[in-house]
Amino acid sequence: MQVDKILRFKKEDLKEFVVKYFEKLDVPVKHAGILADVLIEADIRGVASHGLIRIKQYYGNRLEKGYMDKTTPYKVISETDTTYLIDGGNGLGHVVSYFAMNKVIEKAKKSNVAIAVVKRSDHYGIAGYYSMMALPHDMIGISLTNAQSLIAPTYGTAAMLGSNPISVACPSYKEYPFVLDMATCVVSSGKIKVYDKLGLKLPHGWIIDKDGNDSEDPNDLKDRVAGSILPLGGHDITSGYKGYGLAALVDIFCAILSGASVLTEVGYPDEDKVCDVSHFFMAINIEAFRPVIDFKKQMDHFIQSLRNSPKIKGKERIYVAGEKEFENAEYNNKYGVPVIERVVEDLKADGKRTGVPFNLKPLKNIKTLNY
Amino acid sequence: MQVDKILRFKKEDLKEFVVKYFEKLDVPVKHAGILADVLIEADIRGVASHGLIRIKQYYGNRLEKGYMDKTTPYKVISETDTTYLIDGGNGLGHVVSYFAMNKVIEKAKKSNVAIAVVKRSDHYGIAGYYSMMALPHDMIGISLTNAQSLIAPTYGTAAMLGSNPISVACPSYKEYPFVLDMATCVVSSGKIKVYDKLGLKLPHGWIIDKDGNDSEDPNDLKDRVAGSILPLGGHDITSGYKGYGLAALVDIFCAILSGASVLTEVGYPDEDKVCDVSHFFMAINIEAFRPVIDFKKQMDHFIQSLRNSPKIKGKERIYVAGEKEFENAEYNNKYGVPVIERVVEDLKADGKRTGVPFNLKPLKNIKTLNY
Repeated sequence: MQVDKILRFKKEDLKEFVVKYFEKLDVPVKHAGILADVLIEADIRGVASHGLIRIKQYYGNRLEKGYMDKTTPYKVISETDTTYLIDGGNGLGHVVSYFAMNKVIEKAKKSNVAIAVVKRSDHYGIAGYYSMMALPHDMIGISLTNAQSLIAPTYGTAAMLGSNPISVACPSYKEYPFVLDMATCVVSSGKIKVYDKLGLKLPHGWIIDKDGNDSEDPNDLKDRVAGSILPLGGHDITSGYKGYGLAALVDIFCAILSGASVLTEVGYPDEDKVCDVSHFFMAINIEAFRPVIDFKKQMDHFIQSLRNSPKIKGKERIYVAGEKEFENAEYNNKYGVPVIERVVEDLKADGKRTGVPFNLKPLKNIKTLNY
Repeated sequence: MQVDKILRFKKEDLKEFVVKYFEKLDVPVKHAGILADVLIEADIRGVASHGLIRIKQYYGNRLEKGYMDKTTPYKVISETDTTYLIDGGNGLGHVVSYFAMNKVIEKAKKSNVAIAVVKRSDHYGIAGYYSMMALPHDMIGISLTNAQSLIAPTYGTAAMLGSNPISVACPSYKEYPFVLDMATCVVSSGKIKVYDKLGLKLPHGWIIDKDGNDSEDPNDLKDRVAGSILPLGGHDITSGYKGYGLAALVDIFCAILSGASVLTEVGYPDEDKVCDVSHFFMAINIEAFRPVIDFKKQMDHFIQSLRNSPKIKGKERIYVAGEKEFENAEYNNKYGVPVIERVVEDLKADGKRTGVPFNLKPLKNIKTLNY
């Protein structure tokens, strides 16, 4: 459901702008490059909520105000043959996460399994960026992060847990890789904003108001002391406690294993304070279990069996995790990276303010995808 | 919601019976002991669907008919410092799983992280039994298994994926450990049977009929070529594709990493064929990341923060994963293991047939818990 007009740009042009923007804020050029790659990849994969739209709100503002360290001075606190504990230096989550996932992959080449946990970090963008880094190495990649509180526990009225996403990437042969990248809540706050904009009522089972009653009103989420999003599964009767359990699990793996903030202690990225977000990364070397080619061919068989299974009348396809995003990426890499027009306006305004003008010309092809 | 009369027995008495029952079927006494422990622990924790009720249907019948190997001749196919690939020998899932989890814990004492995958196995009981084995070692335990097909993928009408549970156990200090043990579908087939028995309509979002339409009729699940249970999250609009993704993930981790059957290839445990169920076990040594005592104390803080957060009017408690089951266990260890009266009748009948009489006297206290 797309309510905004989309403009399309060349990936390289966008990257140049983003790098310049963050360099102007004293972010080292190498770090700015990583950040640009992660943000633009989100837009390319059709996850606009985690792309360029966040540049100012989540990162620029916070760097300017000094709530994040511009140099992202991450460091390894301790390591073993299979593990890392990393301090994110209260810098850009993308930068330390890119480092951590690379280190985990490197270790897994020797030890077959490796884990890194990162504390004192910040919002890291799309979880799937890091899990997918394992794919070219014929490994399974896992990426988890906690986040600011949005979800109420089952029977609770307060937003205690973050959207706490789980991403797992598994390589395949000729098919797209299997890439699960899911928040552990029933719906993203971004999707609720779209409903709000369209003046639509929310479907049953998405959110509760401040007293824990079902709500169809997007306004019930607008004030942070008010309502909450339900965990995956919704209410108790439809096993919402499972989504709640998964969200809690992500908090434990990221924050308690690393010694970072949990639950409501985690800061909002658009708030004037340090966030102390934490992450968990893991790589599993497939070769340790069986020949990679066998694994990949069975993955194809698995994906094809699901795709070819009987469909509900009126539904043409059964998707496997990640497939839609890979198709978006294929299209957008060909026709240009989609950016919402309003975001372009914001980038222009912010570019004027900071002295990094956004003067890119949109590509002519304005065909839009429905994502 | 309990619709059956409960009788209570001494744990030791039940174990003696179960061991004798399986010894009579030529299961080695040590294996029978493991099987008895896992089954009885399910009843103790209030998960009756995975306890003594399964003795004949899932195990006894299949051993007698030769669809499972009575000696469970499991063997390690390959290993590295952090990994195991194990062949379950087409025997009792509990036996090879108990072995595999112990091996994983042993390895994690040296390597801090270890994984075992098991192929050619069978139904292993409650997933949480094995994840919890890590707790006394101050480790996080993970246990996954695939299972016979029950769940339809999003937009599909056919049961393609198993209930594919995820269990993760994390130690705490004074609080009960955090033990997530959840099927990746919205509801268990056991709960649907209870609704059926009570003549109740099913809640919206639990199952679909053979054409993929919403159904409130338990009869739509009775024939295997008919309806399906929905994945966690229900329909697409409430993010059912996330539960579908998690179920698929479990199949990949168990079956594709080990080279076992996937999707509908996995046999039903009450069918006349080999199941080829597969499992995934993992242990993470907390000490590799931070002092165990710090981890445990923060776990307590986490659990207490959730418990003490604001509640919906009329709800007295917010539970954390595993809490209800630990409370059941505390009660049942004191007052006796609850067994449904009908199951007792079945055990008596089967005991007579096999020459292992079930002549235990129920304990006097017949107070029942509502689980």
